Amino acid sequence: MTPLAQPPRPAGLQGLRHVRVVGTGLIGASVGLALRASGVEVTLADASPTAAALARDLGAGQVARPDEDAAATPPDVVVVAVPPDVAAAVVARELRDFPVAAVTDVASVKGRILRQVRDELRGDPGGQGHLARYVGSHPMAGRERTGAVAAQPDLFEGRPWVVAPHEASAPAAVAAVAELGRLVGAAVVTMAAEEHDAAVAAVSHAPQIAASLVASRLLDLPLPAVALAGQGVRDVTRIAESDPALWTQILAGNAPAVADVLAGLRTELDAVIDALGRLAADPEVAHGARAVLARAIADGQAGRARIPGKHGTSATMFGVVTVVVPDTPGQVARLLTDVGDAGVNLEDLHFEHAVGRPIGSVELMVVPAAVEPLRVALTDLGWTVHA
Amino acid sequence: MTPLAQPPRPAGLQGLRHVRVVGTGLIGASVGLALRASGVEVTLADASPTAAALARDLGAGQVARPDEDAAATPPDVVVVAVPPDVAAAVVARELRDFPVAAVTDVASVKGRILRQVRDELRGDPGGQGHLARYVGSHPMAGRERTGAVAAQPDLFEGRPWVVAPHEASAPAAVAAVAELGRLVGAAVVTMAAEEHDAAVAAVSHAPQIAASLVASRLLDLPLPAVALAGQGVRDVTRIAESDPALWTQILAGNAPAVADVLAGLRTELDAVIDALGRLAADPEVAHGARAVLARAIADGQAGRARIPGKHGTSATMFGVVTVVVPDTPGQVARLLTDVGDAGVNLEDLHFEHAVGRPIGSVELMVVPAAVEPLRVALTDLGWTVHA
Repeated sequence: MTPLAQPPRPAGLQGLRHVRVVGTGLIGASVGLALRASGVEVTLADASPTAAALARDLGAGQVARPDEDAAATPPDVVVVAVPPDVAAAVVARELRDFPVAAVTDVASVKGRILRQVRDELRGDPGGQGHLARYVGSHPMAGRERTGAVAAQPDLFEGRPWVVAPHEASAPAAVAAVAELGRLVGAAVVTMAAEEHDAAVAAVSHAPQIAASLVASRLLDLPLPAVALAGQGVRDVTRIAESDPALWTQILAGNAPAVADVLAGLRTELDAVIDALGRLAADPEVAHGARAVLARAIADGQAGRARIPGKHGTSATMFGVVTVVVPDTPGQVARLLTDVGDAGVNLEDLHFEHAVGRPIGSVELMVVPAAVEPLRVALTDLGWTVHA
Repeated sequence: MTPLAQPPRPAGLQGLRHVRVVGTGLIGASVGLALRASGVEVTLADASPTAAALARDLGAGQVARPDEDAAATPPDVVVVAVPPDVAAAVVARELRDFPVAAVTDVASVKGRILRQVRDELRGDPGGQGHLARYVGSHPMAGRERTGAVAAQPDLFEGRPWVVAPHEASAPAAVAAVAELGRLVGAAVVTMAAEEHDAAVAAVSHAPQIAASLVASRLLDLPLPAVALAGQGVRDVTRIAESDPALWTQILAGNAPAVADVLAGLRTELDAVIDALGRLAADPEVAHGARAVLARAIADGQAGRARIPGKHGTSATMFGVVTVVVPDTPGQVARLLTDVGDAGVNLEDLHFEHAVGRPIGSVELMVVPAAVEPLRVALTDLGWTVHA
């Protein structure tokens, strides 16, 4: 293979020169695009030659030719970005085919893949050496759309990229995979596979189930009752719009950890239901029932407060300025132009729609010190403002 | 009392001339402000004379003088906007004191108040006549802040105002309370008390508990694991920030209906936990387990789809254009100005923050026909756009 002409490479990124990407869907092609933008040589492989060619045409790298001498330009890292059910087999094959490369996969559950890779390599003469070069990854980025056409060079920008070494991982392999994550713009986080799986069970998989179960409560509700839905239930159930097939795979792949989290949730739910039952029977004698409810809400408050906000800041440190906005084109733009002119940096923004009326309000979240100046500035400009 | 000089009143709103508001907190004072803006005479009463005087100073109406002849200017409607634990007693008193007025309350749970009002009037010589003039309300609006200082004339603008008649309600009283809701700008919805309580249990109270229980799963998670939290769990747990004392009151007040909804949720949760347990034990023999998970997610999708979107449209009919935005003052404003200049009406907007980096992306939600024109327009203007 002829190495590509390469743009100058940023200092400090000398480690990775050639990355092989196996599987050119959304994640694989995005890795290719991001690496190419950093001047890293990328070769692409896919079970479907058409898919690989499409990723190449989109600028994700060169297509690997199966007949060429792989040793000519050996990859430093192989990224296996194939569906989870075949990931372990492909990882094992790549470990054998590229005997000096670090090999990583991108599946969203890490313990199971690691066990499967061990199984694949068991009995292999070079098995232990191969296993040392495997280091799992979980880039926590994605889109609703799939395939190379949806790929973006900035898909991983600022997102966590979990690197999950195991007891037998070689430090050089761990370092190479971590550098890959940094090269594509991600925030690299290192944790063990079990730790990762427990984390995503709590911060992603269990919330998904909870959102779906809350949303399915609305199935049998009369429509006028559903129409009372406010922003709260809309937020709680937003991710319930997710794809059942995809989520069945994800949940099944992390079944033990998700079951653990949900079992803890069920214990607390039982206590809440019991307390409500006693209050329903006789509020006068339901001793301690209110304390159970208050504790459940207070614990939730405390748990919520642990979620880091934007750029690692606390989630609760912003002030809110609420502005009434007519729902016609350009009004929100006009508002935000005025916010910008006031020299205030918007930290977050929340729409609140009025039911059946062409009017709404916008909650502007800003640092607390900016609340009062912003309120004054917008009021002066004629906006209806509630600080 | 001298009637106030009144601005001309809109046609069709001749029904209400004088409304008495008892309890001048956020809701009571906002009702006063909104009614005054429509030219309705408002008298204010509060157990605290200071609170009543403050609401008056803010423009919510005139303070009722206890020594004057109430019959001189009898109210058409009395709005009882006091804490829920004393609402029924105050409703009964007002029914007796103003024997021709329709009396409503604004508590967020309706069945319990109705039972308490019946109890209060039992044995009263005029009890049945009084009860006919009571019609419960639930204005579904509120703020994080409380008290008259937080009152807004547009607090109810476009929000649902549930009117909950009972079997013995007089049609004239129901009509008067409904007109009150319309006068303050709300979207009036009529439903029976039990129907209302079941509705809010499903669309508000159970989601609140679910959000809190998901958030409290994060309490014992190591911080690096919590740091993997994405937008999904942030949305699911946003309302977990609510006040424990307030929510304990709300949940206790609607205990039977909330317990019903949560019991249904627990039945499905048990099925999911059972399916995950079987998958964890042996994925090969866990027959039907994946179907249980897929069904839970699919039912959630279907339930979510029943929530009406903005202005009563379906929640799922918008297209999304994602734009990368540097996190510096004025960038979002500049973007939305460009959106406005493109003649596109923004239906909703969603911030996506990058972890530890001064960059983010904004999801612009627009009608599907506007996706492609908007994508082209913004790309032409130099934005990094993903349609």
